[in-house]
Amino acid sequence: MQILDGKHTAAQIKAEIAKEVEQMVADGQRPPHLAAILVGNDGGSETYVASKVKACEACGFKSSLLRFPDTISEKELLSEIKKLNDNPDIDGFIIQLPLPAHIDEQKITEAIDFRKDVDGFHPVNVGRLSIGLPGFRSATPAGIIDLLDRYHIPTKGKHAVVLGRSNIVGKPIANLLMQKAEPGNCTVTVCHSATPNIKEICLQADIIIAALGHPGFLKADMVKPGATVIDVGTTRVPDTSRKSGFRLCGDVDFDNVAPKCEFITPVPGGVGPMTICSLMKNTLLARKGIF
Amino acid sequence: MQILDGKHTAAQIKAEIAKEVEQMVADGQRPPHLAAILVGNDGGSETYVASKVKACEACGFKSSLLRFPDTISEKELLSEIKKLNDNPDIDGFIIQLPLPAHIDEQKITEAIDFRKDVDGFHPVNVGRLSIGLPGFRSATPAGIIDLLDRYHIPTKGKHAVVLGRSNIVGKPIANLLMQKAEPGNCTVTVCHSATPNIKEICLQADIIIAALGHPGFLKADMVKPGATVIDVGTTRVPDTSRKSGFRLCGDVDFDNVAPKCEFITPVPGGVGPMTICSLMKNTLLARKGIF
Repeated sequence: MQILDGKHTAAQIKAEIAKEVEQMVADGQRPPHLAAILVGNDGGSETYVASKVKACEACGFKSSLLRFPDTISEKELLSEIKKLNDNPDIDGFIIQLPLPAHIDEQKITEAIDFRKDVDGFHPVNVGRLSIGLPGFRSATPAGIIDLLDRYHIPTKGKHAVVLGRSNIVGKPIANLLMQKAEPGNCTVTVCHSATPNIKEICLQADIIIAALGHPGFLKADMVKPGATVIDVGTTRVPDTSRKSGFRLCGDVDFDNVAPKCEFITPVPGGVGPMTICSLMKNTLLARKGIF
Repeated sequence: MQILDGKHTAAQIKAEIAKEVEQMVADGQRPPHLAAILVGNDGGSETYVASKVKACEACGFKSSLLRFPDTISEKELLSEIKKLNDNPDIDGFIIQLPLPAHIDEQKITEAIDFRKDVDGFHPVNVGRLSIGLPGFRSATPAGIIDLLDRYHIPTKGKHAVVLGRSNIVGKPIANLLMQKAEPGNCTVTVCHSATPNIKEICLQADIIIAALGHPGFLKADMVKPGATVIDVGTTRVPDTSRKSGFRLCGDVDFDNVAPKCEFITPVPGGVGPMTICSLMKNTLLARKGIF
């Protein structure tokens, strides 16, 4: 059994990006610039945005954090998005989700110019990913593909089972894994809340992507010996022994599943760091021009 | 075993559309208007476009056929597309594929205003389908969903196996079948040329969508008794006994597979008529406003 060390791999990729940016700056060009919009004071959102700003520093990017109170109206937020769309100094930007209930997240997502949509959530980028065209790929699926790639895990002709059909993980990772590409070329099965026989299907999987948001869902008796298991779950579970008061819990019963696997990601330190790393890759692409 | 009669179902839907259009016109509004661009003289394309024009007549739509020689340049074709994009009298239009080799089909597809893209091939519409947002759905997958719906075939929790991962059939029908929708909510497996154990997977399927373009690929020993089989194949096979010199051949070995099925589509007369019908539905949507 080998741990897929997302933290280490992400650090490697960020170092590669930093080197490229250093050359860019040495050549007299400006570095990539990522902006993040943060609405309100959600604890999780604060943590995520802080990690993204830190990753920008590691890559030599410029970053801007725009904070707004949770009383901001949808109209005002749309106007801030327009400013970022029109600002030639900003290569890409993200709106940290979730947003307050009075703001329509889909409307906000679609207001972002797809050429600056480094989260890859805009329909144009979702469509381009499905068709197999260049575009900004949703960060978590792209990070998973990079992890499979860097560890040289064979995917062609393998059966990948995706647990979950969310728009930001399940559907796009299924679409990426089935592409005629390397990594890719998997037979792909998508299971979800309406699947009656998840265990039976998981037992056929060479690769399992667990993205249900259901802590400890994937048990050892659901995994074929020698499988690769990618855990996308990051549920916050109360834990009084931690200073923060919680711990991150994956969708995989790690202690019991890991001994059966050839490869497995830990939580934390697996998919999480790779996700932020993909955002950096997308921002660099935005700077260099992708469309 | 019951035949899913696409011809009959499509005629029903077209009659419903015609009734709505009749009311529209009676209310003093203009009827939907579909334009088709046909480049060159490909026999198959001529047939398809003629069927679409005929379907427009059946629905009470206005239709315009714009013919160009296969010597038209990409630039000239792009300029014709711009005219249609800008023409408020045209609700939707299609470019009949294939195009001559000197024209980039992807570039042409993306030049169409997605609000008039009634074929549903533009990345915005592909992305919106995947996310589950309103948009123009690719005609063949939408026709399959309508057929499942009209015959009240249960899909929730069923295992649908899609053979083929094309951008216009395999990927979008997989995305539609996995949506939290009715029809939908299927566990979905996508198999393709790199899948080593297609037979084993097909034997688990409650619903099989065969879209490989490989005549007679799906044999009786690959199908579970009681399955529903949807045949998307329409390969032209030479046949000297026909006036046309060919016959349309599906991906399913119909004579041997049909007795095992609960439902099955014939070729021709199954998915084909439903596809054209979906184009009519999209054109009506375009007229009424969808975005």
